[in-house]
Order: sequence, then structure tokens, then C-alpha cells
Amino acid sequence: MLKTIEWTGQSARLLDQTRLPAQTVYVDITDEKQMWDAIKRLVVRGAPAIGIAAAFGAYLGVWKFDGDCAGLLKKLDDVCDYLATSRPTAVNLFWALQRIKRVACDIRGPQTASSPPCHMIRDIQDALLNECIAMIDEDNRVCRAIGEHGLTLFKASSDGIIHLLTHCNAGGLATAGYGTALAPIYVGKERGLRFHVYADETRPLLQGSRITAYELHENGIPVTVICDSMAATVMSQRKVDAVIVGADRIAANGDVANKIGTMGVAILARHFGIPFYVAAPMSTIDPATASGRDIPIEQRDAKEIASPPGVAVYNPAFDVTPAELVTAIVTERGVHRAPFDFSRSPSR
Amino acid sequence: MLKTIEWTGQSARLLDQTRLPAQTVYVDITDEKQMWDAIKRLVVRGAPAIGIAAAFGAYLGVWKFDGDCAGLLKKLDDVCDYLATSRPTAVNLFWALQRIKRVACDIRGPQTASSPPCHMIRDIQDALLNECIAMIDEDNRVCRAIGEHGLTLFKASSDGIIHLLTHCNAGGLATAGYGTALAPIYVGKERGLRFHVYADETRPLLQGSRITAYELHENGIPVTVICDSMAATVMSQRKVDAVIVGADRIAANGDVANKIGTMGVAILARHFGIPFYVAAPMSTIDPATASGRDIPIEQRDAKEIASPPGVAVYNPAFDVTPAELVTAIVTERGVHRAPFDFSRSPSR
Repeated sequence: MLKTIEWTGQSARLLDQTRLPAQTVYVDITDEKQMWDAIKRLVVRGAPAIGIAAAFGAYLGVWKFDGDCAGLLKKLDDVCDYLATSRPTAVNLFWALQRIKRVACDIRGPQTASSPPCHMIRDIQDALLNECIAMIDEDNRVCRAIGEHGLTLFKASSDGIIHLLTHCNAGGLATAGYGTALAPIYVGKERGLRFHVYADETRPLLQGSRITAYELHENGIPVTVICDSMAATVMSQRKVDAVIVGADRIAANGDVANKIGTMGVAILARHFGIPFYVAAPMSTIDPATASGRDIPIEQRDAKEIASPPGVAVYNPAFDVTPAELVTAIVTERGVHRAPFDFSRSPSR
Repeated sequence: MLKTIEWTGQSARLLDQTRLPAQTVYVDITDEKQMWDAIKRLVVRGAPAIGIAAAFGAYLGVWKFDGDCAGLLKKLDDVCDYLATSRPTAVNLFWALQRIKRVACDIRGPQTASSPPCHMIRDIQDALLNECIAMIDEDNRVCRAIGEHGLTLFKASSDGIIHLLTHCNAGGLATAGYGTALAPIYVGKERGLRFHVYADETRPLLQGSRITAYELHENGIPVTVICDSMAATVMSQRKVDAVIVGADRIAANGDVANKIGTMGVAILARHFGIPFYVAAPMSTIDPATASGRDIPIEQRDAKEIASPPGVAVYNPAFDVTPAELVTAIVTERGVHRAPFDFSRSPSR
């Protein structure tokens, strides 16, 4: 599988997902501004991958810092605040930045009147990089666990095939590992199970037809691209046993923010009696957000949607699926079923 | 308003809707093959306009015929059979071709053993052209009547505006007149009513963002383009008072074939308690089709939907909204409410 993000020793290397599937191009990110831009432009996308990318961005913002320790911590705070403005919805971004700041604070230890010795700067920088790399490894394990738990939800139809529909891309290219929504498919394939996936093309940026279809096809999973508007038709034809999607933020009550169009798919699934599953790491669950009403929804540039000159365009990047439409949420901890209460869930 | 189709004296002139809104280009059609291609490629589209275009195509197939009367009628039959293969779903196409054939038969009168005199060929050709031109005038009156009846369904919100959502294009550019779904808006505007319309962009061929948005904007109606996947969001925000769409064929039981994505919109409207209206001329109602199961659905070229090499695409051009999701059907005769029974409705 293509690597979404990796550390080269000199840079955080990102697969440029805006150019898939036509071109496989990598970009080497060496400072926080480049990372902010890469996140904003969706060079890297998918909540778990955005989190890791932001962590690298924070590290790259201070890796060449050579002032004193207090100055480094101040700079790290500023860099994290800056990176936090790149995209508002995926909570993994904020979670990862918090985690990076906590690492730095832990190394420094409790503050005293005297300034910490200067050799700690290098220790902090090394610890930040180690944390970023650890987040990649951890994401791999988390995706694998989501795949294992998610697979328990599916059973083959009479034709021996598990028929799924997904929206946007919550696959390997949205994470550092196997993906979230697509992880059960990859785990199942290793065990010899057979799948067919309808991939909604996912307007306006076509992550479904560009990325999900590409990724599944490359990994030997039969996939059929449909326009978002065709999901109702394939469901009405009983060609879909279950829907599984990722998430950008899950509120304490189980409301799910995910790529625009997800709520519509959930309503259709309910109409046709098809289970609707959400797969995400615990870091996507935000106990501090009571319900979907409190999740900020990113509005993106009208230019992403072609329209005649002078005509208004509305372009929210996400919607919120109410918890009552969600059959189950799969995390690395297991399968969570309604009624959901994540108000006391630690992120990890 | 731009003319969708008109007779120039030498050709049927079509506005090339594949090039809207960037370019306003007309094509002059002078034979049946050109018309078949224009219908197939969606140079002309929208069920009522397709019907009129097919009628002109039939005329153009015989307008230079100079054999005997029986030969002309045989040729007309062949031309109509050929044109009927251009697109399978919109019943107006078949209705218009039947009507043209009936005109020819009526002129010829009851068949006798002796061949009819040759001067009747010119009479038949003239009658066919007159019928085509009459269909344009009639379509204008029908659209106007649909607009009047449809307008009775809407009332303004507290902000004084009637908030609608539509899918695809059932406007003036889908007919020779005011349109069907958009006709109530144009009639209402003449009376000083205010509207706002969300236009689904309507993948894959974007008739909503290219044609509906263009047409409404040109006619001074505020319109906002959304991706098809955003309809659920604007409904959940209570920004839509009613949905109104056109139809390509309405079965005797009220099932409605219309542009792919319509059924999904109807399900969302039901979920959010928003009325879902269909506007169409009586010629779109097909008493001979018992239910939606019997409506042939056109499958279009996979190339209309971009996907990575080797990946399958499913591209049905229409779906069927079950009658139980339709609040009312508006025709030139009035507002028809459930339970629908068009099994004894004459087309006109």
C-alpha cells in the first residue's frame, strides 16, 4: 500500500493526494507553513492522517530552533496554534497537537524560577520526533484493531460476497495504516473473504472515485464507482448489505461529523433497512463536544463547485449524522452500539 | 428566455445544451440522423423537449421524400422506429412519434385497394411540419398551466420567500416553454412573489449547475448551487420548504422516473417532512406502464464518470421514485394527489 506519510530523516514526506490517481507524487515538507498548506489543500486528508501530519508540522516548526527552553516551548505553542487553523472539523488535528505539546511539557518537567538548562532543547526536539514516529506505528495498530472488530459486523450474502457501500475515503490513504472504514475489508481479504464495494464518487473533490476506488482496486478488492446520487438506486436494488464510513469527529452523544453527503447516505440506509456503521480511532471521539450541534463545519471555497458566473454556491465540507441513524461505531476498543455515551471516554 | 428548439424554415434549430453555460451555440438539424445524435448526446434534453425534437426528427426524415404515398408512410415508420432508439426512458419521445404517425395516417385516410394520389405526399409533409410547430405552441400553453397549478402549492416562509430545492433541469430549457418544475417559479415571479432555489448540481452531467442555475439566474431568480450530497444538509437546516422536480415517465400508479438522484431526494424530503412535488405534462404520464418496475432505465456510458483505469462504473441515467414518496403531481390539468391512478388517463 502507498505510504500516506513517512519521515525521511530530513522531511515529512506526504503522498500528494490531490493528484491521485493520475500521478503518484510525493512532497517533502520541511516547515510548519508547508504543512499548514498541505493540510489545507488536502495534499494529506483523512482525520487520522491529518493528526499525524499536524504533529510532524509542529515538530518541523521547532526542529531548528536554537534559543532557550522557554523560547522553544513558546514557539511550539505558536506553531500549534497556527496549525490548528488549517482545518476546523477533524478533531484528530487538535488531539495530535495537544499530545505533542504534552510531550514537550513532560520533558521540561515542572516549571521552576530558574530557567531550564539549554541541553534540554535537543531532548525536547528528539522527543517530539519520536512521538510523531510513534503515532505512525500506533495508527497502524489502531487501524488493524478496527479492522478486526469491524469484520465481526459483516456476513456474506447468498452469493458468498460481502456487499458494502462507502462514502469518501476512510482507507489506508486517510491514515498511516490500513484505514478505518476500509480496514475490515483488508483484514477480511487476508482471511479469504470476498467483498464488493460501491464507492460514492464524493463530490466536490471526488475522494471516492479518485482515492477509494484507486486504493481498493490496487489492493485487489472489486469496486464500482457510482455518483453520490446513485446510492439510493443500488440500495433499492438490494446490492448493499451494509454501509461503512469513517469520521472526522464523533461527539459525546454519538453524532458523527464526516464528509458532506454522509448524513444523506445514513438516511437512505435507514429507509432501506441497511445497517450504517462508522469506523474511527478513539482519537476521533471528542468527549468535550456534547453533540453534533457543537462541531464546527468547515466551509470550503465556492470554486470547488463549478457554477455559472454570478451564481451562489454553498460548499460545506462535512455534515453531521445524528447518532440515531448510526447502527454501531467501531473503534480499536471494539464495537460500540447505541445508545452511545462517550462523555467520559479518554481519547486513548 | 433562450429558445430550446425552433423551426427556421430550413432546419430545426437546437440550443446545444452540452455547451451551456460557457457557450451559447445553436445547431441546425436537417435530417433524422442528426436529430438522433442530438437527442442521444443531450444537445437537447428534458422529456417535453425530447418529444418535440423527435417529432421534428420524424418530419426531417421524410421532408424531402419524393416517392409514392405508401413509400412515405413506410419511410416515416422506419424513421420513427429509428428515432425511438435514441433514448429509452422519457415516454414523451414515444408519445410524440406516435402522434406524428397518427397525423400522417389521418391525412391519408382509410386504406383502399388503389394507391392514394401522389399530391397527398406534399399534404402529409406539410401536416407533419404543422404538427411539430403546433407542439411547440401547445408546450408553451401546457407549461403555463403547470405553472399556474403548481404555484397554488407554495407559500412563503416567514422571511417572505418561497424556498425550493430542485434536481436536474425541468425548466424552460427542458421544454419549448416555461418549463415544468420551474414554471410555478416563473409564473410566481410575474406576480411579484419571491423565491430562492437550491439547485442540485446533478451528477454526472451537471444539468443542475450548468443549466438550472444558469436559467434561473438569467431570469432573475436567486439560486444557490449545491452538490447532490448537500441536499440533506440544507433540508436539515430547514432551508427548503418544498422540493419540485420534473419527470421523464410517470407510471399508471404514480411511480416517477426522473433523473438519477431524484429518488434519494424524495427519501430525504420524506425524512425531513418536506413535501415532494413532481411537475410534468400529461404526455409524460404513461397509462400503459403499470408501475415503475416496467419503466426501462437508460444505462449511459461509463466514461461520463471519471474513475481510475480498470475500475468499474455503474451509470444509470434515471431512477424511479415510488408513488408513496410523492406528495402531489402537477400537470396542465391540475394538482393530482395520492392515491394516484392514471391507468385510464388519455395522454392529452
